Formats: sequence, C-alpha cells, structure tokens
Amino acid sequence: MNVDIIIVGAGTAGMTSAIYALRNNKSVLMLESTSVGGQIAFSPKVENFPSYQSISGSDFSNKLFEQVLKLGANFELETVTAIVKKGEEFVVGTDVCEHTAKCVIIANGVKQKHLPIEAEERLLGNGVYYCAICDGAFYKGKEVAVIGDGNTALQSALLLSSICSKVYVLTLTDKYFGDQALIDQLKKTQNIETLTNTNVVDFLGDENLTAVKAVKDGKEFLLEVPAAFVAIGQIPDNERFANLVDLDKDGYIVTNASMQTKTPGVFGAGDTTVKQIRQLTTAVSDGAVAAMSAIEFLRK
Amino acid sequence: MNVDIIIVGAGTAGMTSAIYALRNNKSVLMLESTSVGGQIAFSPKVENFPSYQSISGSDFSNKLFEQVLKLGANFELETVTAIVKKGEEFVVGTDVCEHTAKCVIIANGVKQKHLPIEAEERLLGNGVYYCAICDGAFYKGKEVAVIGDGNTALQSALLLSSICSKVYVLTLTDKYFGDQALIDQLKKTQNIETLTNTNVVDFLGDENLTAVKAVKDGKEFLLEVPAAFVAIGQIPDNERFANLVDLDKDGYIVTNASMQTKTPGVFGAGDTTVKQIRQLTTAVSDGAVAAMSAIEFLRK
Repeated sequence: MNVDIIIVGAGTAGMTSAIYALRNNKSVLMLESTSVGGQIAFSPKVENFPSYQSISGSDFSNKLFEQVLKLGANFELETVTAIVKKGEEFVVGTDVCEHTAKCVIIANGVKQKHLPIEAEERLLGNGVYYCAICDGAFYKGKEVAVIGDGNTALQSALLLSSICSKVYVLTLTDKYFGDQALIDQLKKTQNIETLTNTNVVDFLGDENLTAVKAVKDGKEFLLEVPAAFVAIGQIPDNERFANLVDLDKDGYIVTNASMQTKTPGVFGAGDTTVKQIRQLTTAVSDGAVAAMSAIEFLRK
Repeated sequence: MNVDIIIVGAGTAGMTSAIYALRNNKSVLMLESTSVGGQIAFSPKVENFPSYQSISGSDFSNKLFEQVLKLGANFELETVTAIVKKGEEFVVGTDVCEHTAKCVIIANGVKQKHLPIEAEERLLGNGVYYCAICDGAFYKGKEVAVIGDGNTALQSALLLSSICSKVYVLTLTDKYFGDQALIDQLKKTQNIETLTNTNVVDFLGDENLTAVKAVKDGKEFLLEVPAAFVAIGQIPDNERFANLVDLDKDGYIVTNASMQTKTPGVFGAGDTTVKQIRQLTTAVSDGAVAAMSAIEFLRK
C-alpha cells in the first residue's frame, strides 16, 4: 500500500496521530503487530483520563479504534521488520509485504519486561500471566501472586482481590512506586498481603504453575499459588529502527519537542520515545504533535 | 482556604492537573474567573479528542468537571488578582478573599481576540469559528473564509485548503505578519485567494452564517461562505503573575518540559504557556505533567 503516513503501532499515541492526520485529509496506514489498543487495553480500570470517571482500558481502546476506522484509516495486522528510506519515500517492510509512505510515525509502545527466569516463558498461559484483567477470572476463589511494585502491579492486585480469595504482592524493595490513591486502596484491602524485599527466583511446576520460589530477607521460600501475574514494567523494542532514529541508553527513541527524530519525515510518539511521564494524557499529546509535524513535513 | 495545590483556571489543562493531584491524595482548590471548561466549552463539536467520535465542547467540559468534583476538588468562581510567595507558602489573592497553598499551577488559558462585530458572538459555532483544526472538517468541499494575517490565520488557511474547495483569506492590510515559509506555501496553494486591504464589518445570517460583509478599497461587498474562521489572535492574561514567572514577548508563561516556571512551586499548564500546538490533547498532557511535577515538589 502507498500512503501519505504509515503509523507503526495502534496504541493510544498511534491512533491519536491517525485522528489528526485523517482529519487533515492525509491517507494513513496503521500497522500493528499484536493487538489494537496497546498497553492500556490490558488495564482493568482507567480513572485518570480526562472526562471519564471510570472506563476499562479495552473499552477506551475500542472506542478509539472505531473512531479512526470511521475517519478512514487503513489497518493491517502486520509486524514491521524494517524501514528504509528510498529517495523521497520510506519503504516499510513487514512480515507480510512492503508498504510505501511519504513519512512514518513510530508509535510502537513498549513490551512486557520479563523476569530472568526460564520457567516464565515455559509456564506462560499455564499459571504465569501478564494481564490480570484477561486471566484473573480463571482463579476465582484461589490464592494468587502479583510480582511488581508499580501502578500496573497495584491495579492488578486490586482487581484480583475482588476475584480471588487472597492476593500476595511481591515487591523487590519495601516501597511501591505508584499513585498514592492506589497504594492507600491496596493497604485497606483485607485480602491483599504485601511481601516486601522479595526477589522471585523461579516458577515451579511441570504443566502448570504450582509455586513461586522467592528469597525474602536472605531466606528462600515457596509461595504455593496456581497463578502469578508478572507486572515488573516494560521495555522498548526499537533496534530495528536504529538506522533512522537515535535511541537512548535504554532503547527509547530520541525526539525533539515536535516529535521529530534525526531523520526528516520520521517521527516518534508515545511510550516508545524518551520521556518522563508515560500516561494516556502524554501519549495523546505526542500523537497529536507528531501528526501535526508530519502534516507540516508533507506540505513542504 | 489552605490547600496543597491551587490551580488557577478550570479549563482542560487545569482540570486534568486536578485529577492527577487528587488521585495522589493532594488537596486541591480550583479558581476560575469566568466559566468552567475554558475555550473548548465554546466549540460546538469536538471530533479530534481520542475516544470520542463526536462530543460537544460543553459536554466534554461538563464530564471533566463532574470527574474532578467527584474526586474531591474544591472549586470557587473567583478571579485571581495576585500571587505572592510568603515563606514556604503562596498566598493567592482573589476578588473575594485570600487562599494559601504549598504550590500553584497556573492554567488560566488565553482569551480569544474578537472583532468589533456583534454578530460574531451570536453566530459562534454556527458558521463563525476560531479553530480550523477543530471545526474545518465540517466544511469539506465548501468555500470558507479565514480572517486574519498572522501565523494562526496562515496555518488555518493552509490546513483548510486541503479540506475545503476554496479558502478566502481576508487581511486588513496588504501584508501577512507570519513566518515566510507559511506565506510562501500559501502563495503556492492554488485554492487559496487572499483579499488584501479588507476590513470585515459584519457577519450575516439568522441561524447560520450566510455571508461575510467586508469593505475592500473603500467598496463594500458580500462574500457568501457558510464558514468564517476568525484568527486575529489570542492573548494570554499573565501580567499579574510576572512577579513569579517569566513571560515571553507575547505574554505566555515560560516553563521547562516538566512545566516548572522560574519559581520553584509554581507551574504552568495549557494554552497560557509557551508552546507550538494548542489542542485538547496537548492541554491534558501539560496538566498531567504539571501535577506530577507539583506532587514531586510537595514530596521534597
């Protein structure tokens, strides 16, 4: 397909770019490797996005996706493998075919960070999960573990506490790194127990998870639970774009305030870029600014 | 009233700051001089805010206002006249009384510059608009007018030229007062026609705009268009804060990327600050970032 703007990633930032581009009569192709909506689609409750007292992340994403489709976005479920500049155009290669665009907005978000434990991948889907909203319901009335100390871990624990009989939260230090409101709620919830200074070292079980092996204050112990939700953060996935954009030491895309990368015609937006606060609110701003910069680029 | 954070202005940026502050257990007082919602409350249709295919600006603002009240914001309809630092606190004087806060977020927006024409307000939202990005899409394939000669007018005209069949730009003199790049682009755009030395004297139409009445070279004429975009400028209103913050030559508040001003504990957010793109999407980002910076300031 040959379009004005290819947007890599159909999360909040990418879809917001699409809104602005389409409303300015640019043709848009969105390429998404996994599922529409990005990280927020896995969030059980969003209560900090302006105008919604409460909305599920998947409802929010679905509304946004309907909006961009209605505006005329093209959408393909393809994984971008490489972007190459050829003359005045960019050739975007995917696992399926090649597309061409006059400019590109990279808004591919971040991926789930993994523990350095072989069994995590082996037991994935059989006791080890990343998404409480997706898989929590399978453990109704059971005891489960959440591993992590940020907002995602806090929200996952709170969600699971209303489904499961008991939720253990395993944190690496003695602190949470999330919103105070969530921390307060968590402390008030009777069936949530936090195990601080706890380092998870293995997942046990042949077919299904039987226990989490961890070290707390120097002592190894087994937490016998049928399910563990890993929520230790996210990492970018940008090595394949390093020919066109600068990456910081953690792999995030370097942009200026107009969301331009070092290559004219290539823009970054959302969680994948270098920034201090990764929120829906900042993602929509990035998406809008990147699109306006792309439109400006196309005009010249 | 004595609170953690006083927010000057209950527009989109200020209310988003309130959401983030309140969810992090900070006490908040919002002070608004005129009406809740800011500029967007006057926009008939918002179709570029992520997740809403279409919502009126006033509905959007009302939802946002309900959200912040439900989270526990204090709100007063008072005009801030001065902010003074006293020891570790800020004393915020209004036309009614004095309040005290540990930090202040200034999110008072901008005022639209108006033509001296009664019909401008009467037809606002029904053919008379201030925002081409917001409302241009409603006039796809139609002829429209842009009134003004600065960057906003130029950008509006260029933007509209790719949506509308024809764009008339009405300038008071025979000059544009904007970036040369924009002027050059405008001159190259075939479906833009500039009417120089043109003074707009009235807007005609009962329910909806039918024509712009103007005087060119001493002769009165009617330009029959269903939409006119008034872009004669917006002005900030920040002189009263000049003791605490730096203003640029146009009067906008200078902040860094964390929305901090030169005075620790005083933050800026939204249209009132120095920035390139003034949109709902960028306002919510500013609001969130300013609040997180304020929370960080309070922690120390």
